[in-house]
Amino acid sequence: MAIRMVKKSKKEWQKPQSTKKQIEFGNRGMSLEDDLNDTNTYYLAQERAVIHKKPTPVQIVQVDYPKRSSAMIKEAYFKRPSTTDYNGVYNGKYLDFEAKETKNKTAFPLSNFHPHQIEHMTQVTKQEGIAFVITSFSGLGEVYLTMFDAFFPFWERMLQGGRKSITLDEIRQHSDQIPYGLNPRLDFLSIIDQKCF
Amino acid sequence: MAIRMVKKSKKEWQKPQSTKKQIEFGNRGMSLEDDLNDTNTYYLAQERAVIHKKPTPVQIVQVDYPKRSSAMIKEAYFKRPSTTDYNGVYNGKYLDFEAKETKNKTAFPLSNFHPHQIEHMTQVTKQEGIAFVITSFSGLGEVYLTMFDAFFPFWERMLQGGRKSITLDEIRQHSDQIPYGLNPRLDFLSIIDQKCF
Repeated sequence: MAIRMVKKSKKEWQKPQSTKKQIEFGNRGMSLEDDLNDTNTYYLAQERAVIHKKPTPVQIVQVDYPKRSSAMIKEAYFKRPSTTDYNGVYNGKYLDFEAKETKNKTAFPLSNFHPHQIEHMTQVTKQEGIAFVITSFSGLGEVYLTMFDAFFPFWERMLQGGRKSITLDEIRQHSDQIPYGLNPRLDFLSIIDQKCF
Repeated sequence: MAIRMVKKSKKEWQKPQSTKKQIEFGNRGMSLEDDLNDTNTYYLAQERAVIHKKPTPVQIVQVDYPKRSSAMIKEAYFKRPSTTDYNGVYNGKYLDFEAKETKNKTAFPLSNFHPHQIEHMTQVTKQEGIAFVITSFSGLGEVYLTMFDAFFPFWERMLQGGRKSITLDEIRQHSDQIPYGLNPRLDFLSIIDQKCF
């Protein structure tokens, strides 16, 4: 099977003329996923951690093998993810997290998470892995890291018939804000350092 | 976006009438991937470890959204994997491995591994994660676990112009054999217990 190499779009970092402005408005125009991918690339280059986003799970139904060309998937479907999107290793410890974004400015809707992902993070925590969620309020430019132990009670509250979101105040109370930086963009490991090491 | 749920084929374990025969010929008819997936499902159910196979990475080019039906991927291509296929957490430690099968009965061809995967396992080892490879000689019914530190010199030998495979004798000398069992099918964690804990 010929595998066509698909080049990842690689943003080359250019030093901005006005650093201050860049920091203040650093969150504009890039998605949380882009910011985290850049951050993980930086951590990898610095040999600080090895963290990757998992590929989107798809069920492949039909593949064509044209002559002199690469295999082409002609029919496939999205599958429900059974784990979180990100995992990796940091100082020998296993890290696992899910990252989600909302435009809502007052609360984070829990519908962004799949029950399977919550179950997965529960299992990871039992195995003494480090599990957490990263939530981005894109309208506010604020990103928070909530350890899974602090996040889970809000999920339980929903299951017991309570509200289907976490208010911004609650997030602020139970999380650490990840400030936007230049490099890395979102230095979440500094928070993990304080919390877990 | 509607996500069609694709049911995983779930083998229900039926206790065989002749246990001995089942063990002896346990390796027939199932691929290494099936055996490892069954093993990981067993570990998860027993709360012994949380290990998953990563989805095949694909580059999605075109998606159709038919009415009253799930999103269908109409054009996509296989991407080169940048990491290994399996990772997870065991007793708080990060585990990472690649598993490959050969029909060859005398040596394991190194072409089964991508340079990116070797680089990834090097990075994982630097971060004090537990990295290893599982090689299956399907024609012999023998499966081996080789810690990455023991595997890497053979990769280097190839890079320096040496042979492009590891002989079966060399594998035997530098690895532990994973015996086939009933449940789990391939109890590789027992070897990790001896080597790393």
